[in-house]
Amino acid sequence: MSPQRYRCTVAYDGTDFGGWQVQPNLRTVQAEIETALLKVGAGETIRIHCSGRTDRGVHARGQVCHFDASRPYTSGKWQEALNGVLPRDICILDVRPAVDNFHARVSSVAKEYRYFLYLDAVLPPDLRRTWVRERRQLDLDSMHAAAALLQGEQDFLSFSSNRGVEEVTTVRNLMRLAVEEVPEGLCVRARADGFMYKMVRQLVGCLLRIGRAEMSLADVQRLLEFPERNHEAPSAPPQGLFLWKVWYAGEEVNNV
Amino acid sequence: MSPQRYRCTVAYDGTDFGGWQVQPNLRTVQAEIETALLKVGAGETIRIHCSGRTDRGVHARGQVCHFDASRPYTSGKWQEALNGVLPRDICILDVRPAVDNFHARVSSVAKEYRYFLYLDAVLPPDLRRTWVRERRQLDLDSMHAAAALLQGEQDFLSFSSNRGVEEVTTVRNLMRLAVEEVPEGLCVRARADGFMYKMVRQLVGCLLRIGRAEMSLADVQRLLEFPERNHEAPSAPPQGLFLWKVWYAGEEVNNV
Repeated sequence: MSPQRYRCTVAYDGTDFGGWQVQPNLRTVQAEIETALLKVGAGETIRIHCSGRTDRGVHARGQVCHFDASRPYTSGKWQEALNGVLPRDICILDVRPAVDNFHARVSSVAKEYRYFLYLDAVLPPDLRRTWVRERRQLDLDSMHAAAALLQGEQDFLSFSSNRGVEEVTTVRNLMRLAVEEVPEGLCVRARADGFMYKMVRQLVGCLLRIGRAEMSLADVQRLLEFPERNHEAPSAPPQGLFLWKVWYAGEEVNNV
Repeated sequence: MSPQRYRCTVAYDGTDFGGWQVQPNLRTVQAEIETALLKVGAGETIRIHCSGRTDRGVHARGQVCHFDASRPYTSGKWQEALNGVLPRDICILDVRPAVDNFHARVSSVAKEYRYFLYLDAVLPPDLRRTWVRERRQLDLDSMHAAAALLQGEQDFLSFSSNRGVEEVTTVRNLMRLAVEEVPEGLCVRARADGFMYKMVRQLVGCLLRIGRAEMSLADVQRLLEFPERNHEAPSAPPQGLFLWKVWYAGEEVNNV
């Protein structure tokens, strides 16, 4: 029987992982899922491919990966069987059959990340894994204005890390960048057709510097108009970041 | 130098504790704080007394305790020193001098607990320590109606566990019981002049049965009018519960 391709949506608490990608001597999300697939898939070695690797400490609510498997399970059975053997910090939210040329990274048309900021002197311990504390008073109006400047199709070279130089192009369409007030603090939502390595954390770092009046709107404008390859963009720490959702062709990139 | 009494506000992630109270061979919040006080308080053995013990797995955003100490630290210094030695799942939010007859439990005039319910098939792993999943469709209108019935000064014997029989009275003033929609699901807020052992979890369990249409408003009315000592009230699991805030005489019990 020829293998079937599956699209799989995954959530994880990234705290106790060394990131997504398989690496020697590190507990990683990819390694845990591939181990679970080996157990569930009748001993077949199954590789998974994700929409984009998340760093050490970064979480996901809607990471997507694909895999090919021969075992003739239904979608529900794959989900149930995988969740039965996965550790408690990874959870399969959905498994569905996909066409043979579906690719979790290549086929994606948009992604949303969210970053959570707690605005008080002491971070409550129950939020320590997924929120980052910001002690300083933030000027929200300036942050909204900076977010508006950063939106659109632009060269984000200044917001890429050194790894960004490997990219074919550093132009991305940042469809949405919003700073929203939520019950516990602020949520920064970033949605684009694609993100470069550390780009979201650098966008959040930039918004924080704007909010603290350490940087001006003119500075942001300059970074966009005259992209600096070696601009040392301040990067926000990983534990506040979630890969929230990935969209594919034919799916409406709506305001969820 | 005679000791000074302090009032101390504490937050903790209850997941990895066997509850508040010191018990042999169990990691408890009280034991961790007393160990920290021994380190910080120049070797003096300091006991703490809380507003109400929380069970295994229950969290706090605003637990209050008091202690007496001889070391002439300022409030800020106590907080800083304690947070410097406490484990990451306990955090001191505030320390302030109190009058000699202040007692964290006896002097309290009201308390608020909050309970968090996630309404979807699969609980995202980042919420697994502090949210409880409810798969069933809930009838919110009925839950609001039941919450309204339960509010007020009433005999809550039916919502106490067997330990309730030790109470002098099982009458409590439930000033507020509300089922609120929050971004991730529902938050049940319960505020009263005092709570009996497991009372909040039994109130939440009752509201859930109402929401699932497993119980009627008439059943709730009956439990209040004819309190049953051995009524087996359904108790919601501990991990969704937070002791949120404690009020003392002179403080306005407001709608925070």
